Amino acid sequence: MYTLITGGTVVSSTGSGQADVLIEDEKIVAVLEPGSGVLGATFLQGVDRRIDATGKYVIPGGIDAHTHMEMPFGGTFASDTFETGTRAAAWGGTTTIVDFSVQYTGEDVLERFAAWHDKAAGKCAIDYAFHQIIGGVDDVSLAAMDTLIDEGVSSFKLFMAYKDVFLSDDGQIVRAMQRASRNGGLLMMHAENGSVIDVLQQQALERGETDPIHHGLTRPWQTEEEATYRAIRLSELTGAPLYVVHVSAKQAAMRIAEARDTGQNVFGETCPQYLWLSLEEQLGAPGFEGSKWVCSTPLRARVDGHQEHMWQALRTNDLQLVSTDHCPFCMKGQKELGRNSFAAIPNGIGSVEHRLDLVYQGVVTGKISLSRWVEICCTTPARMFGMYGTKGVIAPGADADVVVYDPAGRTRISVDTHHMNLDYSAWEGFEIDGHVDTVISRGLVVIDDGEYHGHAGHGKYIRRGLSQYLI
Amino acid sequence: MYTLITGGTVVSSTGSGQADVLIEDEKIVAVLEPGSGVLGATFLQGVDRRIDATGKYVIPGGIDAHTHMEMPFGGTFASDTFETGTRAAAWGGTTTIVDFSVQYTGEDVLERFAAWHDKAAGKCAIDYAFHQIIGGVDDVSLAAMDTLIDEGVSSFKLFMAYKDVFLSDDGQIVRAMQRASRNGGLLMMHAENGSVIDVLQQQALERGETDPIHHGLTRPWQTEEEATYRAIRLSELTGAPLYVVHVSAKQAAMRIAEARDTGQNVFGETCPQYLWLSLEEQLGAPGFEGSKWVCSTPLRARVDGHQEHMWQALRTNDLQLVSTDHCPFCMKGQKELGRNSFAAIPNGIGSVEHRLDLVYQGVVTGKISLSRWVEICCTTPARMFGMYGTKGVIAPGADADVVVYDPAGRTRISVDTHHMNLDYSAWEGFEIDGHVDTVISRGLVVIDDGEYHGHAGHGKYIRRGLSQYLI
Amino acid sequence: MYTLITGGTVVSSTGSGQADVLIEDEKIVAVLEPGSGVLGATFLQGVDRRIDATGKYVIPGGIDAHTHMEMPFGGTFASDTFETGTRAAAWGGTTTIVDFSVQYTGEDVLERFAAWHDKAAGKCAIDYAFHQIIGGVDDVSLAAMDTLIDEGVSSFKLFMAYKDVFLSDDGQIVRAMQRASRNGGLLMMHAENGSVIDVLQQQALERGETDPIHHGLTRPWQTEEEATYRAIRLSELTGAPLYVVHVSAKQAAMRIAEARDTGQNVFGETCPQYLWLSLEEQLGAPGFEGSKWVCSTPLRARVDGHQEHMWQALRTNDLQLVSTDHCPFCMKGQKELGRNSFAAIPNGIGSVEHRLDLVYQGVVTGKISLSRWVEICCTTPARMFGMYGTKGVIAPGADADVVVYDPAGRTRISVDTHHMNLDYSAWEGFEIDGHVDTVISRGLVVIDDGEYHGHAGHGKYIRRGLSQYLI
Amino acid sequence: MYTLITGGTVVSSTGSGQADVLIEDEKIVAVLEPGSGVLGATFLQGVDRRIDATGKYVIPGGIDAHTHMEMPFGGTFASDTFETGTRAAAWGGTTTIVDFSVQYTGEDVLERFAAWHDKAAGKCAIDYAFHQIIGGVDDVSLAAMDTLIDEGVSSFKLFMAYKDVFLSDDGQIVRAMQRASRNGGLLMMHAENGSVIDVLQQQALERGETDPIHHGLTRPWQTEEEATYRAIRLSELTGAPLYVVHVSAKQAAMRIAEARDTGQNVFGETCPQYLWLSLEEQLGAPGFEGSKWVCSTPLRARVDGHQEHMWQALRTNDLQLVSTDHCPFCMKGQKELGRNSFAAIPNGIGSVEHRLDLVYQGVVTGKISLSRWVEICCTTPARMFGMYGTKGVIAPGADADVVVYDPAGRTRISVDTHHMNLDYSAWEGFEIDGHVDTVISRGLVVIDDGEYHGHAGHGKYIRRGLSQYLI
Ligand SMILES: [Zn+2]
Ligand SMILES: [Zn+2]
Ligand SMILES: [Zn+2]
Ligand SMILES: [Zn+2]
Ligand SMILES: [Zn+2]
Ligand SMILES: [Zn+2]
Ligand SMILES: [Zn+2]
Ligand SMILES: [Zn+2]
Repeated sequence: MYTLITGGTVVSSTGSGQADVLIEDEKIVAVLEPGSGVLGATFLQGVDRRIDATGKYVIPGGIDAHTHMEMPFGGTFASDTFETGTRAAAWGGTTTIVDFSVQYTGEDVLERFAAWHDKAAGKCAIDYAFHQIIGGVDDVSLAAMDTLIDEGVSSFKLFMAYKDVFLSDDGQIVRAMQRASRNGGLLMMHAENGSVIDVLQQQALERGETDPIHHGLTRPWQTEEEATYRAIRLSELTGAPLYVVHVSAKQAAMRIAEARDTGQNVFGETCPQYLWLSLEEQLGAPGFEGSKWVCSTPLRARVDGHQEHMWQALRTNDLQLVSTDHCPFCMKGQKELGRNSFAAIPNGIGSVEHRLDLVYQGVVTGKISLSRWVEICCTTPARMFGMYGTKGVIAPGADADVVVYDPAGRTRISVDTHHMNLDYSAWEGFEIDGHVDTVISRGLVVIDDGEYHGHAGHGKYIRRGLSQYLI
Repeated sequence: MYTLITGGTVVSSTGSGQADVLIEDEKIVAVLEPGSGVLGATFLQGVDRRIDATGKYVIPGGIDAHTHMEMPFGGTFASDTFETGTRAAAWGGTTTIVDFSVQYTGEDVLERFAAWHDKAAGKCAIDYAFHQIIGGVDDVSLAAMDTLIDEGVSSFKLFMAYKDVFLSDDGQIVRAMQRASRNGGLLMMHAENGSVIDVLQQQALERGETDPIHHGLTRPWQTEEEATYRAIRLSELTGAPLYVVHVSAKQAAMRIAEARDTGQNVFGETCPQYLWLSLEEQLGAPGFEGSKWVCSTPLRARVDGHQEHMWQALRTNDLQLVSTDHCPFCMKGQKELGRNSFAAIPNGIGSVEHRLDLVYQGVVTGKISLSRWVEICCTTPARMFGMYGTKGVIAPGADADVVVYDPAGRTRISVDTHHMNLDYSAWEGFEIDGHVDTVISRGLVVIDDGEYHGHAGHGKYIRRGLSQYLI
Repeated sequence: MYTLITGGTVVSSTGSGQADVLIEDEKIVAVLEPGSGVLGATFLQGVDRRIDATGKYVIPGGIDAHTHMEMPFGGTFASDTFETGTRAAAWGGTTTIVDFSVQYTGEDVLERFAAWHDKAAGKCAIDYAFHQIIGGVDDVSLAAMDTLIDEGVSSFKLFMAYKDVFLSDDGQIVRAMQRASRNGGLLMMHAENGSVIDVLQQQALERGETDPIHHGLTRPWQTEEEATYRAIRLSELTGAPLYVVHVSAKQAAMRIAEARDTGQNVFGETCPQYLWLSLEEQLGAPGFEGSKWVCSTPLRARVDGHQEHMWQALRTNDLQLVSTDHCPFCMKGQKELGRNSFAAIPNGIGSVEHRLDLVYQGVVTGKISLSRWVEICCTTPARMFGMYGTKGVIAPGADADVVVYDPAGRTRISVDTHHMNLDYSAWEGFEIDGHVDTVISRGLVVIDDGEYHGHAGHGKYIRRGLSQYLI
Repeated sequence: MYTLITGGTVVSSTGSGQADVLIEDEKIVAVLEPGSGVLGATFLQGVDRRIDATGKYVIPGGIDAHTHMEMPFGGTFASDTFETGTRAAAWGGTTTIVDFSVQYTGEDVLERFAAWHDKAAGKCAIDYAFHQIIGGVDDVSLAAMDTLIDEGVSSFKLFMAYKDVFLSDDGQIVRAMQRASRNGGLLMMHAENGSVIDVLQQQALERGETDPIHHGLTRPWQTEEEATYRAIRLSELTGAPLYVVHVSAKQAAMRIAEARDTGQNVFGETCPQYLWLSLEEQLGAPGFEGSKWVCSTPLRARVDGHQEHMWQALRTNDLQLVSTDHCPFCMKGQKELGRNSFAAIPNGIGSVEHRLDLVYQGVVTGKISLSRWVEICCTTPARMFGMYGTKGVIAPGADADVVVYDPAGRTRISVDTHHMNLDYSAWEGFEIDGHVDTVISRGLVVIDDGEYHGHAGHGKYIRRGLSQYLI
C-alpha cells in the first residue's frame, strides 16, 4: 500500500525544501521532487492515499523521550495509561515515546522491566521504548544493565534525590557510570541534591509554609546546579556519557555548556514548562492552584531569567532536546493529597499532547529556527537514544512516522479539548500559531481532519541501539 | 538525462542510510529505497548512467569556503588559477569553492569585484562563489556591501593585520559590523594583532632570525587569541555575526566557545594544516624547507596541544567547518623570495585537492564521526554561506553535486600525483584510508575511474543568499 | 622635636590596636603601648606636642596615586595648581600625591619631566612624586624610561585612546612593556578602545546627540573591557606587570580578576566617582549639568551594577586601590567649552580633597572593613608605587605622615567649603560619617582644629623605588 | 621584666623595616627606631635581656592552625602528645597551634571538648587553641556550636568523607552552615567525596592493589575538586563562610579562586607536603616506603603541576595560609598496620616542627615574597581564626610571641635531629637556607642557642574570637 504526501515543505534539522514523500506500508521509500515525473502515471494511479501538504511542513514524527505513563508515585499513579497517554501523544504529533521502566529501591530490575513491558503491551497507539530507572545500584542491577542493552534499553536513569525510593549515592553513581562506560549505555540523571532539599523542606514545613510555592522555594537553583556539576564531574572521572533530564536552572545549563566545551559527552534536555512557565506566575498562583504546576525540578523564577536562558541553551545546542516529563496527576484525588503540605503533592505535569506545539511557538516568536524545532523535537531524540534511521528522519528506509504541520493553523489548549486523562490543563488558554494536521505512525494515518483513526496496539516496542549522538 | 547512483550509503550530517540517488540533468530529483520498485522498469531502462556505489559513501559535494585562486600577494600571485585550482578541487571531491574578491586599501570595491568576476568567468571546473575582502572601510565600501549582497556576495572579510594593505582599525571594523548587522551580511575576520606582529617581526629580523620558523615565533598564539577576543567583543557591541577564519590557536577556539555559550553568533573555521601539521615538525624543518608551510595564522606547537584542540573544537561544534585557505605558492620563484627573510615568504599552503581526504582521516582515526565529516566539509559550509538547499545536501531539488567516497580505497598524496599547479606538496607522503571515487558537479561526472572528465567553464557563479546558520 | 599622639586606635591593613605614636622631627621613632612607662617622665616632659587621639583612628597619611595638577587638556588647564591641589589634598588627609609628568605625542620625555619638576618645585603642601605619561613610544622615550627610574619615576602610563595626542598602538605598547619587563618599571594603562570610541562619538554628533550623557553612551563598557583584556594579554605576552587606571566597568574588573587568578601581575585602581556616582543620576542630569561629571572612563549605569561591583572588587582585592584621578575643570570657562558638544567638554572630576572620606563612607555602610580602608587608601598605594617603608605605614623609620580620623565626626561636602580651586563640587551635599581631624606631613601638623598650618614648599619630591607589590 | 630585641629587620605582611622590639613580661610594649634615644640610659640599664637580631628577621611567632596531637585514628593515636608536639612546634618557630577537639559520630560534642581540654591542660610548651570537629550534626551539636563560640572555639570542622566516623551528608552540612551564618562561626571542610573514594578503594583492593600509592590513586583530584565545589555552593546557599582545609589539587584551588572572585567568603589552606612532595616521588616510593606519606588529601602528581599551582595560589591569595595538618604516626606499630592494605595505613604526616622553614624555602627560591611568608605563616592564621592583635603581629599590646629567623643559617631536616615523637621524617634530608634562631613565647625565650628553655604548661589556652578575615 502506497501513501504519497505531496506539495509540502520537508523540514529537516539542517534546512527545508519542497519534496513529496512516498510511503509504502510502514516505511518511507522515496523522497521526490514535487510533481516529479519519475513516478510513472501507472504507478501514481496505484497510490492508495494522497495527502496534500501544500503550504504545510512535513516533518519526522515527534519523539518524546521522557514520559511516565501509569507511574506509581506517592501512593497514586500517573493518570494517563499507556493507552490514553499514547493516544494523546498522537494527537500532538508525537509518534514515539520513551517511557521509564521503574525499579524502586529494593526491587529487582529485570522483573520490573518485564512488568512494564506487560503494562504497555498491546495498549499503545504509537511506538514506544523504555529507559530503565535504577533505584538500587548493586551487583545485580549492574549486571542487568548489560542484559537490558540487549533488550533494546540502552539508557539508565539514576536519581540524586528521593532518599530510600530512588536515590543513588555518589559511589553508586560511579559504579553505574563505570558500567556504562564499558557497555555503551547512556546515564540519565535526575540532578537535584536531595539531601539538601529534604532539610529545606522539613524546615519549611516546620515554619508552617505548606503552600505549593514552597515546593519551588525548597528546591533552589543551587540544589540543581550543584547536583548537575557533581554528575558532570563523576562522568568525567568515569568516562561515561551523561544526559541530564529536565534542566530548569540557568546555572545548571551553564555547567553543562562548560563541560561540553571541554569535549565531554554531556547532554541536557529541558521541558516545555521550563520554557514558558514560572515560579511566580504558575507555582505561586493563589491558594492551592499552584499545585497544578508542582513538578521536579520546579518551575523557576522568571525574574532571574531562567526561561529565556533555556531558549538560549536550545539555540546554542547546550541543551539538545525538549521532552515533556509527562507525568499527569488529576487535581481531584491526586494533587489534592497535598492540600496540607506541598510535600505530599504528587509531582508532575501533563504535556505529552502539546510538546510540538509549545516548542513551535518558539519558532513563531523567533526564539529558535524552524530546523532547530525539528532537530530538538524529532531528530536529536532519535540520535540520542539510538533510534535514528528508523526514527527521526524523513528518508528512504525510515519508519513512516510523519507529521503534516500547518503553520497557518491555530491551536488553543484547554482541558475541554485535550485528550490526556487529566482533569485540568497546565496550559489552559495557551494559543499556538500552528497546528498538527495529519499524523502518520508507521504508515498508519492516526490523526487526520481532527479525528483519531488509530487504535491501541498499533504501537510497537522499539528496541533501541546505543546512542548515535556521542562525540 | 538521468543518472542513478545505486547501492551506496548516503551520509548526511545527522546520520546515514542505504539509498539510491536519482539525478535528472543538473538536479537531484529523488532519493529512494535501494532497489525500489517505485521506478518502473520502463523508467529504469531510460536511465542514462548508473553508478554503482555499493560499499561506498554517497555524500554532498564538498564546499571549500576559503580559497585564493590567482591571489596577488607580495609581488607575486597564488600559483593556481581559477582553472587549475578548481580542477584540482574537483579531483578532491570539492564541487564548490568560495573564493575571495580582493579590495586592497585604496582600491574601489565594486570595480575589484567586477575584475574578479572576469578572472573566474569561463574558467572554473566546478561552481564558485565569492566573499569580498574589504581592505578599506569607508563610506563607499560600506555602501558597496549592500550592492554586493544583491550580487550574491553576502560575506565580507576584514583583516586585523597587514597594515597599509588590508588592515582595518577597530573603528573601521565597528563601522563594517554595524552595516552587516543591518544588511544581514556575515563578517569574516582574519584575527591576528598585526601591530604586535609587525614589532615582533622587526625585532626578530634585527636579531638576524630569518629562518621560516620565525614566521611562527613572531605570531605567537596571544596575537591570534587577543584579536579573536577583540573581534568577538566588537561583534557583541554591534550585534553583527562573526566568522573567524583559519583558527589555529586553542586559546582562540576557547574564546569562540565562550562567546557561543552566551548565544552570540560567532563561528570559526579551521584548516587541514592546523589539524595535522605543527610548528616544530613542518615550519621548523631544517634550512629553508619550512617555507613550504609558511601561512597565516601560522602552524602551532604540537607540544601545546593546539592540533588536538582543533579536533575537539570540531567535535563540540565550537568550530563549524574546515576550509583550506588554499593559497599555493611554488618554491621556485615564489617561496624563494624569502630566502633571506621569513617576512618575504609568500604566505600560503595549497590543499584544495585534499580537504575531504585529510578530514576523512579524522574519521578513520576516531577523531570525528562520519556524519560530522559530512557536516563540516559539505553541509555547514552551505548553510553558513547561504547556499543550502541548492548545495550541501542530498535531497530533491538540490544541485546534483555528489561524491562517491570509497572507505576501502587509499590515497597517497604527493607532488607527483596532485593536480594543483604547485611544485611541491605540503602533504608529501600522507596516506589516507579512503578515496574520492566519483565526483559529480551539477549532474556532470567530472571525476571517475581516476580520470578527469570536466572542463573549464562548466562551473557557474553561485549567487549566495544570507547565512542560513545564524541562531 | 618630639610629637606624641596618644590614646588612639592605630589602624593598619591587617587590623587595629591601641597604641601611642612618637614622632621625632620628620620621622616616626616609636609605636608604644598606650600610657607606656617606658618613656621616662623626663622624656615625656620634653615632648613638644601632644595630640590626643582618644576615640579616634590613627592611620598612615593617605596616598593619592593618580592626580593631574595643572594638566593641559583640550586647550585649557586643570584648575588646581600644585599649590592649591596639594593644599586641598592635605585638608582631606592625603599626605602624598603621585602626579603625572606628561609627554604628548611629539614631545621629548625627559624635557617634559624636567618641566613638570619645575612646575611642582616649591609649591607643594605635601610630598609628591611623578608617574610619567608616555605619549610617544619610540627609541628615545624607551631609553628615557631607564633614566626616569633612576630619577625615582618607576611607573609609566600609556593610553589606548586619544589618537594623535596620547594613543599608543599595540606594537608601541608591546615595546614599552618589553622595556618594563627588563627595567622593573610598572606599566599603567588608560584602557579604552579609542578607535571605536572615536567612531561612536562622531556618529552620535552627526545624529545631533550633543548632551553630556552621550559622553558616557559613546564609551560603552565594551570599549573599556576590550582594551583591558588586550592590555592584560600583552602583559602576559611580554611578562610586564600591568596597572589599569580608573577601572569603572564591572566586566573590566572581571577580566582583571581572571588574570590575577592565573598569577599575572595585573592590578587595578578605581576612583570614588565609580563607587558612588552613575551615568543615570549624574552624567545624565538635565541640560548641561551632567558636564560636571564628564570624565574618562565615564560614569557607568547603576542599573547594571557597576558601582556595587567596584566595591566587591575592592573587597576581593581584585582592585587594589582607590585614587581620585583628580583633574578639576571649572564650569565657567572650562566645562562650558562643551556646551555644543560633549566631545569638547574637558574630561575630569576634582576629588583629591575627599578620597579618604568617600572611601570611609564604605566602612560606615559595611562595604569594606576598617583595615581595608587603610590598605586601599594608604598602604597599598605605597607598596604599589615603591614608597613603602617611608610611606604607607605607621612604624619606626617611616615618614611621620599621620592622620587622626574621627569616626564620630561628620563631613559635609560642598563647593562652599572645599579647598580645591574649583567652582563646583562633584560631591555637593554628600555627607560623610567621619572626619579628618589632624593631618601630619613629615612631622609638620598641616591640618588641625579646622585650620591649615602648612605652606607651599613643605612638600618634597619623593624618589620612588620599584614596585613592592609584585608577586 | 624587659627584653629588648635589637638590630633586626621586622617583617610584617606588608613589608619590612629596621626596628627594635621591646617586651615587658608577656607583652610587646614598644617598637622603636633602632638605637633610638627615646629609651633613656637608665631604662636601658634596667632591660633584663637583650637579643641581638642584627642581620636577621624578627617576625611574629608562627601559628599552625591545623594540628592533631594525640588524635585517635584507626585504632591508634597520633604519636605526638600535646607535650611533645608543642615542644617540637616551638623548635620550629611556631608559638601557637590550633588543634582539633574531636567528636566522632555518636559522641557528645561538649563532653568531648571538655575531654580535649583536659588532655592539653598543663602539657603545652606554647599557646594553643581548639577547633571543634563535628562528626554528628544534630540538634544537640548545633546548639553546642553556640556554647563553644562562648568558650573561644569559633571554627567547626565537618567532613565530606569517612562514613560512619566523621562524614556529614549535604543536609547536615547545610544545617551546620545555617547555624554558622547566624552565630558567626567559621565552617572548616575536609572536602573529599568519601562515597566515591570508598568505592574506588574497595575496587582497588579487590584488584589486589594494596601498595601505598593506591591511597593516592583512589582519591583522584576529581574527588577533592567536586567536594570543594559542593561545599562552596552550599556556602553560597546558606551565606556561611567556608574554610577548606588541606587543599592539594589545583582544580580545587581554582574553584576556590572563582568563588572568591564573586565575593564569597571562601578560604583555603594548603600544607608543606602539597608544596614540595608528590605522588610519584614520595607516595609512589618502592615497597611500603610510600606509607610515610599517606595522608588525606593525598600527595598529587607533579606531572600535573599541582605543587606549582599551590605556590601560585599562595601568591595570588587564593589560598590564604599554610598549616601542617600535623598528624604523625610512627612506621613501627602504626604505619605498619597497613602493610597488607593501604586502606589500613593511618593517615598523616608530621611537620609541625618544619612549617616556617619549609615555607621560607619558597622565599629563597623566589616562589613567594618575604612578607607573604610572614602573612601566610603568622598573620593571616591569627586573623582567620580570631586571634589577631593578641597574636600574629609585632605591635604594642600583642603577646610577645616572636621569632628571630636567620636567613644566613641553614637547617637540615632529619629524624636524627627533629624533636617530634616520630620514628622517621617525611622530610629526611631536606636542606633549608634559613634557620629559626630564637623563639619567644609570651615573653619566655623557649628556644635559643640551639637549646630548649621552655616547659610543659607554659602554653595557655587561647579563647579565640570570631574570624577577623571575613570580607
Ligand atoms: Zn559551548
Ligand atoms: Zn521524569
Ligand atoms: Zn587570513
Ligand atoms: Zn585566506
Ligand atoms: Zn586616563
Ligand atoms: Zn588620569
Ligand atoms: Zn581571584
Ligand atoms: Zn586534619
